[in-house]
Amino acid sequence: MFLARVYVTLKPAVNDPQGLTVIGGLHSLGYETVEDVRIGKYLEIRVAADALTQAESEVTGMCDRLLANPVIEDYRFTLEQVE
Amino acid sequence: MFLARVYVTLKPAVNDPQGLTVIGGLHSLGYETVEDVRIGKYLEIRVAADALTQAESEVTGMCDRLLANPVIEDYRFTLEQVE
Repeated sequence: MFLARVYVTLKPAVNDPQGLTVIGGLHSLGYETVEDVRIGKYLEIRVAADALTQAESEVTGMCDRLLANPVIEDYRFTLEQVE
Repeated sequence: MFLARVYVTLKPAVNDPQGLTVIGGLHSLGYETVEDVRIGKYLEIRVAADALTQAESEVTGMCDRLLANPVIEDYRFTLEQVE
């Protein structure tokens, strides 16, 4: 069993209206030092693969086909063996 | 300037309907090895703090007061100095 930690983030050139909203909220709470906020998705996926290479190719496929929108998002992930 | 990487996740006991939906989607794409999916938020926050300790206490406050719902979510973050 492998645990994949997947990080899906907007490409740098893509506007982040959610991030702008959070900046406004944080400033209104008094956190004036906040200069930028970018919001993305964090997924933890348990994959019953037999080997690391299998898990790696499967998670890559999952990201390319479903979890990340290639037009506006980037992704990266880590893999670790778990019980 | 500091970059905070914030991970907001549902507490283990909390159901994750989004996660269940993604499992269904991945299974329908043929990724039968997927056993569990938990979805959370990943934020990158730039904080113009003067010292690490200041950044740490500010980001903790941001998480406690706005970014994470203490009833159903946990959070953790890392901090690194950036340009």
